[in-house]
Amino acid sequence: MAKSKANRPKARLPKGFADRSAADIRRTNHMVDTVRTVYERWGFEPVETPFVEYADALGKFLPDADRPNEGVFAFQDDDGGWLSLRYDLTAPLARYVAENFDRVPRPYKSYRAGWVFRNEKPGPGRFRQFMQLDADIVGAASPAADAEICMMASDTMEALGFWRGEFAIKVNSRTVLDAALDAIGLAGEDHGQTRLAVLRSIDKADKFTREDVQRLLGEGREDESGDFTKGAGLSAEQAEAILSIFYPLVGPGAGTNMFDPMDDDETNIAAQDGAPDYRRTDSDTLWHVRRQLEDISADVAALDDLTAMSDIYRAAGYGTKRIQIDFSVVRGLEYYTGAVFEAALTFETKDASGKSVRFGSVGGGGRYDGLVGRFISQNVPATGFSVGVSRLAAALEVRSDSEPTPGPVIITVMDRDNLPAYQKMTAALRAELNKGGATVPVEMYVGDAGMKAQLKYADRRNAPCVIIQGSQEREAGKVQIKDLAAGKRAAQEIDSREEWVAARPAQVEVEETTEAIVAAVRNILL
Amino acid sequence: MAKSKANRPKARLPKGFADRSAADIRRTNHMVDTVRTVYERWGFEPVETPFVEYADALGKFLPDADRPNEGVFAFQDDDGGWLSLRYDLTAPLARYVAENFDRVPRPYKSYRAGWVFRNEKPGPGRFRQFMQLDADIVGAASPAADAEICMMASDTMEALGFWRGEFAIKVNSRTVLDAALDAIGLAGEDHGQTRLAVLRSIDKADKFTREDVQRLLGEGREDESGDFTKGAGLSAEQAEAILSIFYPLVGPGAGTNMFDPMDDDETNIAAQDGAPDYRRTDSDTLWHVRRQLEDISADVAALDDLTAMSDIYRAAGYGTKRIQIDFSVVRGLEYYTGAVFEAALTFETKDASGKSVRFGSVGGGGRYDGLVGRFISQNVPATGFSVGVSRLAAALEVRSDSEPTPGPVIITVMDRDNLPAYQKMTAALRAELNKGGATVPVEMYVGDAGMKAQLKYADRRNAPCVIIQGSQEREAGKVQIKDLAAGKRAAQEIDSREEWVAARPAQVEVEETTEAIVAAVRNILL
Repeated sequence: MAKSKANRPKARLPKGFADRSAADIRRTNHMVDTVRTVYERWGFEPVETPFVEYADALGKFLPDADRPNEGVFAFQDDDGGWLSLRYDLTAPLARYVAENFDRVPRPYKSYRAGWVFRNEKPGPGRFRQFMQLDADIVGAASPAADAEICMMASDTMEALGFWRGEFAIKVNSRTVLDAALDAIGLAGEDHGQTRLAVLRSIDKADKFTREDVQRLLGEGREDESGDFTKGAGLSAEQAEAILSIFYPLVGPGAGTNMFDPMDDDETNIAAQDGAPDYRRTDSDTLWHVRRQLEDISADVAALDDLTAMSDIYRAAGYGTKRIQIDFSVVRGLEYYTGAVFEAALTFETKDASGKSVRFGSVGGGGRYDGLVGRFISQNVPATGFSVGVSRLAAALEVRSDSEPTPGPVIITVMDRDNLPAYQKMTAALRAELNKGGATVPVEMYVGDAGMKAQLKYADRRNAPCVIIQGSQEREAGKVQIKDLAAGKRAAQEIDSREEWVAARPAQVEVEETTEAIVAAVRNILL
Repeated sequence: MAKSKANRPKARLPKGFADRSAADIRRTNHMVDTVRTVYERWGFEPVETPFVEYADALGKFLPDADRPNEGVFAFQDDDGGWLSLRYDLTAPLARYVAENFDRVPRPYKSYRAGWVFRNEKPGPGRFRQFMQLDADIVGAASPAADAEICMMASDTMEALGFWRGEFAIKVNSRTVLDAALDAIGLAGEDHGQTRLAVLRSIDKADKFTREDVQRLLGEGREDESGDFTKGAGLSAEQAEAILSIFYPLVGPGAGTNMFDPMDDDETNIAAQDGAPDYRRTDSDTLWHVRRQLEDISADVAALDDLTAMSDIYRAAGYGTKRIQIDFSVVRGLEYYTGAVFEAALTFETKDASGKSVRFGSVGGGGRYDGLVGRFISQNVPATGFSVGVSRLAAALEVRSDSEPTPGPVIITVMDRDNLPAYQKMTAALRAELNKGGATVPVEMYVGDAGMKAQLKYADRRNAPCVIIQGSQEREAGKVQIKDLAAGKRAAQEIDSREEWVAARPAQVEVEETTEAIVAAVRNILL
């Protein structure tokens, strides 16, 4: 049946795609289930769209004769229409709400977990298929909706096992940034590129010094390697205005935990005002920015929504350690129209090779009032949040030191003629060990190999124990049960084969009754 | 922000794709979790492959300049290689095992749930994206592996809530069919088309009379509407040989439950031999077919594996009601090389419009020893089972009469200036009602509408109750709690507005303390 080598296809994954291990799947499922529970408690309902949409519904994509796949995976349908694999979960949601506008309750609160696809050059840790987990409120313009998304994001981080102070939900508003840019003479679409460059410079403020950000706002900056990054081209005066509004509030270390991780009392933190300016209360931050905006005659009403949001989450008990206004949060996507959020991990940890890692952002979102209006003749306000599932899973993996999931109890097969009898024993054991909702895997070995290979198989499966019955035991009405973990420990202590055979460490012989075998196995599992 | 109508893309799904409702997602998740638990108990581990594979790895597809998308969704990568969306979960598993051959334990027992894609003409209930749930054993040639798959499939059906007698796992073997075809002079690839036509005729045996199947095996058959189906072209003698082997064992009604649903004792069923020939013990069936194969000098060794399988699952306690040999099971896919299985629902039910429905097959599988050998120079035996998730979900939906999931407890907003206070109340209620792992959705209304629209929203969300506090209640330190279900009942009994206002049915006023509100809400939820 095997083909000749020349005709054989190569067994290989396309670049940028990955297979998922049992550990990865279990970890991700657990994570998604945890988040799902939080979202349900907040009154969000699941809704899912398919993987394939009309390319024009996704909005980013225009078919191009030379290269139809730029950015997205696209293909032509039988009727000539262009289809694309979705590249995020927001664009399809906008299509869904527009298509079912009169049928969904409004505000429409929904969540979904799903795979998205990017037709980009893959790199280390950069895949062409990855999972997102989104929650959105469509049809609510109120800052209460944005505040709700931030509080729920905070609850999510806590439910996943992060402590207060290990994460921060950071809040900003495009409206404030826009007001400042308008005031320094960069209003309108003519300055689109400059505005974008300013946003990118501010985005660097949590990594770069004030001087470096100043260079990025001006002519540009040369890094240690000699690479030059072209600047936004602002005048010294314009750059200073931007810096005086945004820079002192951020800077390296912003959002890190300087206080007792369990302390979430804002007044308590405010009392430490003598400490460096790394974390402020929202009211301090807002007061500062209001003064700076007034200095350049910018529209201070731009601060109203952030102020309203802050009042709401503070009233609901979410302090500075969980949610905080942070003007370094920019978020790349051009469709954001108001509040923007980011969930950042603030602790440092070591990766597998012992290197210090700071995870940083594991999710983000914001207000995107224009997206549903692409389809229908109404403006439909919307706000949402998206979690990068694999980034978050990686962070959780580093943080936990969980044991690998135990493998199955394995009934080995000594004489092949007795397969029915072995299978009967297996069925009885499985039924008994899984009573009351437990999950204890039990299997009969179904391969063709001998005992040595079966024990090797049990080892690879991380089996806690194996059950052995040869003809001798069968005639005596007995079975042998071998504790594999205890066996490994014993093997390090016992030197000679004679001693081993005499001691038979980690192996017990019991009567061939379900009760006796179950008791012996339970004894090993506990 | 809304575009002019001419530029607006239409909000519509591509044909053959569907959005998924909350009820569908919840039902499917519950189903997949249930099946997952069964598979884990049998020692199967999750593994998942990506949605995209090299087209040649999937095997079905050869790029074609005119129509690259025949059957599968395909697109060209930057480097010119053809990529496809997977059309099942088996071909990617074969690629995975071949690529990781020395790293996986063997036998390799794995399972996965995942979406697959078919580029076919969609029709009613026929989608271009659907979910499969597969379990496979790769690297085991033993009938014990096939028996294990069948027993696990049976456990799965029971775990999902089907009673014994409501489903049947039906077993057949391509080897037996092949032996019969070889013996009547249809050996070899020259007769490929005829063999396929015979398989298709046998496949009809559970729906058609003996005479009709005879016509299909011979010249052909005209149905009531006058449509003619061309037959396999067998001689009368050949057709009779096939019929005498396969037909009497199947026929309409085979596999239906004629006995006590809890009775799974084979001897008990065998004792009812006076009853019509609808269900036999495996040993009767095998004895009958052995005699018929001998009559045409066919190779009776073809029955050995089925006999061994039957011995194993019977010994493990799986009787005729759960697993049975049934020669009408053919399964379409050409890659099956030995045993084939089918999970069929045997009960009749009514659909939403009151029509009688018989679900029939909800899953199937078999032995596919050639699939991994496409990639590497070894033959790797394999066997597996695939569940059609939406078919099974539809069957479960018809069978259960579960209430819709209750919606959130909704805190309405009377005066917008007090959003922080409403949100504080919401947070406190959510924390209290979800203590101890419960999931009770609680939300503050975040839209902009007035009280009437808020109550309509609560109704659409299927909210059990709403909490109302206007300025009057706030000053008095009270809240109103409205039981929406009880309110609907009362509305049918009370006629006049005066009477309603006087009685205030289904509405209570309580102190504005978390304890009092929680107690009143719990009273409504229970």
